[in-house]
Amino acid sequence: MTHTAELIAVGTELLLGNIVNSDAQMISQTLSALGINVYYHTVVGDNPQRVKAAVEVAKQRADIIITTGGLGPTCDDLTKQVLAEAFGKKLVFHAPSARRMEAYFKAFLPHRTITENNYQQAMLPEGCTVLDNDWGTAPGCAFQADGVTVIMLPGPPRECRAMLEHRVVPYLKGMSDGVIASRTVKLFGIGESAMEARLRQQMESMTNPTMAPYAKEGECEVRITAKAPTLQQAQAMLEPVEAQLRREFGDLVYGVDVPSLHARISTLLREQGLTLATAESCTGGLAAQRITDLPGASQVFRGGVVCYTDQVKRDVLGVAQQTLDSFGAVSSQTAQELAKGVCRCTGSDIGLSFTGVAGPDPDEGKPVGLVYIGLARGDRVWVKELHLGSARDRNRNSAVLHGFDMVRRLLSGLDIL
Amino acid sequence: MTHTAELIAVGTELLLGNIVNSDAQMISQTLSALGINVYYHTVVGDNPQRVKAAVEVAKQRADIIITTGGLGPTCDDLTKQVLAEAFGKKLVFHAPSARRMEAYFKAFLPHRTITENNYQQAMLPEGCTVLDNDWGTAPGCAFQADGVTVIMLPGPPRECRAMLEHRVVPYLKGMSDGVIASRTVKLFGIGESAMEARLRQQMESMTNPTMAPYAKEGECEVRITAKAPTLQQAQAMLEPVEAQLRREFGDLVYGVDVPSLHARISTLLREQGLTLATAESCTGGLAAQRITDLPGASQVFRGGVVCYTDQVKRDVLGVAQQTLDSFGAVSSQTAQELAKGVCRCTGSDIGLSFTGVAGPDPDEGKPVGLVYIGLARGDRVWVKELHLGSARDRNRNSAVLHGFDMVRRLLSGLDIL
Repeated sequence: MTHTAELIAVGTELLLGNIVNSDAQMISQTLSALGINVYYHTVVGDNPQRVKAAVEVAKQRADIIITTGGLGPTCDDLTKQVLAEAFGKKLVFHAPSARRMEAYFKAFLPHRTITENNYQQAMLPEGCTVLDNDWGTAPGCAFQADGVTVIMLPGPPRECRAMLEHRVVPYLKGMSDGVIASRTVKLFGIGESAMEARLRQQMESMTNPTMAPYAKEGECEVRITAKAPTLQQAQAMLEPVEAQLRREFGDLVYGVDVPSLHARISTLLREQGLTLATAESCTGGLAAQRITDLPGASQVFRGGVVCYTDQVKRDVLGVAQQTLDSFGAVSSQTAQELAKGVCRCTGSDIGLSFTGVAGPDPDEGKPVGLVYIGLARGDRVWVKELHLGSARDRNRNSAVLHGFDMVRRLLSGLDIL
Repeated sequence: MTHTAELIAVGTELLLGNIVNSDAQMISQTLSALGINVYYHTVVGDNPQRVKAAVEVAKQRADIIITTGGLGPTCDDLTKQVLAEAFGKKLVFHAPSARRMEAYFKAFLPHRTITENNYQQAMLPEGCTVLDNDWGTAPGCAFQADGVTVIMLPGPPRECRAMLEHRVVPYLKGMSDGVIASRTVKLFGIGESAMEARLRQQMESMTNPTMAPYAKEGECEVRITAKAPTLQQAQAMLEPVEAQLRREFGDLVYGVDVPSLHARISTLLREQGLTLATAESCTGGLAAQRITDLPGASQVFRGGVVCYTDQVKRDVLGVAQQTLDSFGAVSSQTAQELAKGVCRCTGSDIGLSFTGVAGPDPDEGKPVGLVYIGLARGDRVWVKELHLGSARDRNRNSAVLHGFDMVRRLLSGLDIL
C-alpha cells in the first residue's frame, strides 16, 4: 500500500522567518527514498487552536502525519498536548524518559538544573511508541489512531536528523510490506540538467528500482531506491543500476553513499597515509574550514595559509616577488608556487592552492570569476584555470569543489585536468 | 486593521526535499516587518486538485494569500489557472508582459527561442495588478476578490526576493493605513532565554512599537517595529525603544541594523585603518572564511594560518617549542604566542588566535570544549578561556563569535575580558 504523508512544523519562529524549515526538506528526502508520497507541508505557530486546525485538515488528506517542533519544556511547546487531544488520547508520565533526561543533563549540561518544566517532556500519549532521543532532552513518539500514523519529532535540525535516521526510518520500515534499500551515487563535474537529460528517458520508464536526481551547491547526485521482500533482494536490485550509472558517468562519479567530496578525499588521504595543506587567497579559508569540519581531520590535514596580501604570499609561502611582479597574484605561476610553498612550510605531501577574483570587483585588471587552482605533489604541479560567474559566494564554493576534485583525481590515479 | 497572511508554495521539488522553502522565510521576514501576521505556510505539489484544496483552506483563514512558484512555461506550472478559477476570474492575454518577455530573452537568453509555452506566461487574471518581473520571464500579479488579496510570485529565490522588495512591499504599503519602520538591535554575550526574560514583561505590554526577540547560532537580536502616518513619525517612535535597549543591555549591544558581528568588526577595522590576521587551530579556518565572505575584505584582512600541527605552530607562527612542550598546544600560553606570531608573519595590526579541543575526542588529556582565544595588539595580549559543549560544529562557531567579540571590544575601547 502506498502511504501519503503530511508534515506539520510547529513554531512561530518559522512564521516570523527567523529560521527556514530545513526539517521539512530532510524528512521529505527520507520519505521519498522510502517510497512514501508527501503531498503537503504545513507550518503553524505556537498556538493551540491553530495547531489543532492544521491537524484536523491533515487528518483528512494524509495517513501519516509527522510533526516537528513544540516538544520543548516551555509553555509554548504544545505539540504533544494538541495531537493527543486531536486523537482522543491522554498524556501519561513515562518514567524511563524522565531518567534518560536526567542522565542527559548530567552528561551534557552539568551546570543546568532540571526544572519541573523539563519533566513535562516526559509526558507522552498513552500507548505510544517512545522514540528515545539520544541527542537532546525531548523524546519523540509515534502512535496509530483513526487510521492515521502520527509521529512527533523535536525541532532542532541536529536532533530531528538523528531521530529521523535512527528512530523513524526503522519504525516506518516496520509498517511497510517490504524492505526498502537505497544508494546515492555522487557526481562532480556535470550540471544537474545535463545529468537529468542523460537519465530522463530511463527514469520515466522505471518503477522499481527508481532513480531520482538532485542538485546541491555545485554537486549532483542520483538516488536509487528499490523495494523487495528482503533487504538482500532489494540490495541486489540496486547493483545493476549502480553499475549502469558508473558506466554512464565514468569518473564523474566520486563515490556512492559518501556525504561530500571533502569527506571522500579525507578517506583517500587516510587510506594512503598522506597529508594535505591549503594555500587560499580568493577562497579565504573555505577549503580548510570544510576539511576540518570533519572529526579526525588532524590525521590528514596539516594546515593552511590564507594569503590575502602579496606579502603573505611571499614571506610565508615563498612565492617569488618576481612572479608576483611579472604575472600578478592571480596567475597560473602564482598558483603553482603557492601549492608548492604550502607543502614546504607545513610539511605536507600534497598542496592545494586557490588564487582568483571572487568579486564583486575585478582585480589586477582581471575579470571577476577568473580562478587558478594549483595542486602540488612532490615535484609535480598542476594548474586548473576556471572562468566562473559573478556571484562571490558561489565562486568561492565552486572553486573549492574543483580543487577537491583535483585532489580526488590525483589520489584515484585519474587524469587531473 | 491587522492583516493575516498565508503563504502557499507550489512545487513538487519542495515535497521531494530537493530544495528548501527559502521563499517562505524571506517573505515571512518581510511581512513581519510590515506588521502583517503570518499564521500558516503551506507547501503543495504541481497538482491542480491539491493546489485548489490548499487555496480553499487558505481562503477560510487568511485575508492575504501569497503564492510562490508555478508561474513557469511548462504544463506543471498551474498556479495562475488554479488561483484564477478559485476566485472566479478568467485569464486574459497581457500584451505588455509578452513584449517584456521578448525583450528579456533578447537581452539575457539570446541563444534561446521563445516558444508558444512562453507566451502562456503572459496570460494573467482579468483586472489584476501586473507585477513586472525585471529579473526573469514570469510576471507576477495581484488582485482582490472575495475579501482576500491574492499575490502570485515566481519561485526562484533570486526572482522572488527582487519581486518582493520592489513590487510586493510597495503594493502592501499601499493597502496599509500607515507606514512601518523597524530596527534590529544585535547582541552578543547573552543567551536568548536570558534576553527574553529581561524583556518579557515589557514586550507583552507593548502594541506600537513592538519588540520581538530572535536567536541565531550563538547571537541574539531584538527587532523593534513601529507604525505611524509618516516614516519620520515611525522612526521617531523607535528612538526611545532603541535607547532603552541600549541602557538595558549596555555593551552587549554590538550594533543596530548590522548584518553580523564580523561585518561589525570589518567596519570598525576599516574606520580605524587597522588590519587583522587569524591563527586558527580548532576553528580550522572558519574565522578567516567568515571575514573574507564580505566583499572588500582585503582592506582589513591580511591573512591567516590554519595550524593543525605543532610543526606549523612552531615553524610558521613562531610558537616556542618549549611552550608547546611545557603547556601543550591547547593552552593560554600557546594562544598568546599564536596571536603575536600571526601579527608578525602577516604584518597585521591585530592578531586573533584559536586553540582548543573541538571534539568529538579529548586531546592532550584536555576536555572537549576547552578553547583558548588569544588577541594581540602591539605588545599587549589578552586570552579568554572558554568551556563549551560537546558538539564540534557549535563549538567552532561559538569560539569564532567570542573571538570576534574580543576584537569588537578592543576596537570599541571596552573591557576585553
